[in-house]
Amino acid sequence: MRSNENFLKIQSSYLFSMIGKKVREYKATNPQGDIIRLGIGDVTRPLPEAITQAMHSAVDDMSSESSFRGYPPEYGYDFLVEKINRYDFAARGVKLENDEIFVSDGAKSDTGNIGDIISVDNTVSVCDPIFPVYIDTNVMSGRAGVLLGNGKWSKLVYLAGSEKTDFLPELPKEHADIVYLCFPNNPTGMGITKPQLQKWVDWANENKSIILYDAAYEAFITEDLPHSIYELEGAKTCAIEFRSFSKTAGFTGVRCAYTIIPKQLTVNGVSLNKLWARRQATKFNGVSYVTQRAAEARYSDEGRKQVEQTIDFYLNNARIIKNGLNEAGFKTWGGVNSPYIWLKVPETMTSWEFFDYLLEKIQVVGTPGSGFGPAGEGFFRLTAFGNADKTLEAVERIKNLFAK
Amino acid sequence: MRSNENFLKIQSSYLFSMIGKKVREYKATNPQGDIIRLGIGDVTRPLPEAITQAMHSAVDDMSSESSFRGYPPEYGYDFLVEKINRYDFAARGVKLENDEIFVSDGAKSDTGNIGDIISVDNTVSVCDPIFPVYIDTNVMSGRAGVLLGNGKWSKLVYLAGSEKTDFLPELPKEHADIVYLCFPNNPTGMGITKPQLQKWVDWANENKSIILYDAAYEAFITEDLPHSIYELEGAKTCAIEFRSFSKTAGFTGVRCAYTIIPKQLTVNGVSLNKLWARRQATKFNGVSYVTQRAAEARYSDEGRKQVEQTIDFYLNNARIIKNGLNEAGFKTWGGVNSPYIWLKVPETMTSWEFFDYLLEKIQVVGTPGSGFGPAGEGFFRLTAFGNADKTLEAVERIKNLFAK
Repeated sequence: MRSNENFLKIQSSYLFSMIGKKVREYKATNPQGDIIRLGIGDVTRPLPEAITQAMHSAVDDMSSESSFRGYPPEYGYDFLVEKINRYDFAARGVKLENDEIFVSDGAKSDTGNIGDIISVDNTVSVCDPIFPVYIDTNVMSGRAGVLLGNGKWSKLVYLAGSEKTDFLPELPKEHADIVYLCFPNNPTGMGITKPQLQKWVDWANENKSIILYDAAYEAFITEDLPHSIYELEGAKTCAIEFRSFSKTAGFTGVRCAYTIIPKQLTVNGVSLNKLWARRQATKFNGVSYVTQRAAEARYSDEGRKQVEQTIDFYLNNARIIKNGLNEAGFKTWGGVNSPYIWLKVPETMTSWEFFDYLLEKIQVVGTPGSGFGPAGEGFFRLTAFGNADKTLEAVERIKNLFAK
Repeated sequence: MRSNENFLKIQSSYLFSMIGKKVREYKATNPQGDIIRLGIGDVTRPLPEAITQAMHSAVDDMSSESSFRGYPPEYGYDFLVEKINRYDFAARGVKLENDEIFVSDGAKSDTGNIGDIISVDNTVSVCDPIFPVYIDTNVMSGRAGVLLGNGKWSKLVYLAGSEKTDFLPELPKEHADIVYLCFPNNPTGMGITKPQLQKWVDWANENKSIILYDAAYEAFITEDLPHSIYELEGAKTCAIEFRSFSKTAGFTGVRCAYTIIPKQLTVNGVSLNKLWARRQATKFNGVSYVTQRAAEARYSDEGRKQVEQTIDFYLNNARIIKNGLNEAGFKTWGGVNSPYIWLKVPETMTSWEFFDYLLEKIQVVGTPGSGFGPAGEGFFRLTAFGNADKTLEAVERIKNLFAK
């Protein structure tokens, strides 16, 4: 009997576990400290009323024999898939078939599990900085190689972002079979324009590579940017898109997401849509009925209005944070099409030192940029998902601290 | 770019998809036929009131800022984990720590995903007949080898059950690193006694093998059989146990399960508990808050009483099916500690021929034994999850058909 030894390569704790640990330790020695958390990207607004109404009604369905629902369809109820198709794609001019949409319990599950359907010997390319789960799941499956002294994995192709390019990654110089892209970006909060994204789509088609496109934050787009990669010509032959209700409709605690795999997307004649269908039918049993009714309600007239109000609430927080940071002399990115604000930390500090400094001095918790990869060193992420008063208060504390 | 070519080895449709297809085709040409489905193991009773009350209350929590819950803890809320530990283990004399319990969205997910933490070069042993997901997930990950002419996979070690042994598998004669066991068994409905299971535990410890123990049907046990493998001495160093609320509390549409990995379970010094914790934290984001409150309510005084009533309802159906089949001259197994009744089909027919015969003649849908493996050929599974009147009606039709 042998375990999967690739798991042993991951030495450090998962970024957010480490943050949690540091905050707990601080609290233990400073129980009076009024900590404001702008670290983890978790929502705080209650679910919109249209959604909770639908959930109550779904619970009632489950309490009588005639309307009870057992195993859900493996890829999502038609009532939900149809709404996704209509409102998230058809309304933007993207034509999808319903069986190109796979409903799941979360984008984190899907971006991790997608590795099941691709060979372990593919070369994977990731942006730097990046959401750590993309890398960790590839380490676990053996695609990442070994961790080098510079903090990079030997087999991964890194696309380093920098201040100069406003953290927009450049096309890989080496061959890469798979590229993870996330726009609006986590952690930098930066969006991508259609012409910029078209370059990636063209590159992928030319190189027979596949783009794993994480669009979990598309609902925060306020400028003229693509919400779906399928708004770009040629994307259906090279891209898989991940979507989530977590940040859009406040579903981090409700758990619903979906993944698009167009039927045109084939690899040596093999349909990835079919492989994923098989994967999900075999290793997943569908999403809770109550959750799917909740997700459906997000698309009703009331649901759309109420979700928009929540997004506006967070975007207002983002503006407050961004403006405050700029006033305090920080250079910032994001916060316009995204709930994330990325800032440059003072030259004298590392990302983690800045984390400790903020926690110690003003009890504000953010996320160290280096947790997102080597190119994130010297940067820091704040999120707009907090309570409005607390967010204002945190910004005031930052301004006071750095005004001194 | 290469896909995972192991997926291509699976030729046939998933068993239950095939059944669904045949039923749809029958309906299309016989729209007047009154079909009774005793095929898929899906529950039909509404959720107990204690559970729907808890769900309504949890939905209310999600609708105000002060009680709103975002990302759930990756391994389950304490309120649920503590109840699981108290009622499912401590009450039976099994001492577990809370962090040996991992709450998830389903036992199918867990029995599939568990493959992530074990090396692909382990030898896997499966009972025959068996729940097909155990095999399919190993085919996908490359542990099964190639499909042979006899319907078996080249690298799997099969433990064939038979009438003679009442389908209790015998210990493997070849080396096996991993053995899947499921008791009460799906599909045969047979339980295992403590002395019988102790042999497996001892064998696993002697051979440094691991037992993947699926106890999804433990709530149906009426005789003196172990509910958990950890009731057996030595099981904590060799067994992982999968549990589900699906059949216990009628949660097939609610989605909640849990997996036990004791900390004593190590492989060459590596803790599988830690690997699974890492796997779940990276590729899973926890179970819906509303679902976890529903699962918690299953353990309240009212919840336990109401769940017991539902189980009794299904067990009564099982008795009716079993007695009816016996009266009609069939040899049967199971149905006493299980919602499944396994029967021997007439010598002149294969399992699928019997399926077609029942569908055509009396519109009763069951599951062909051969769908569970080569040793299932000549047998058939009926489930007790139907409506009581329909179950009675199906049994009457069977008795009439075979009395002729």
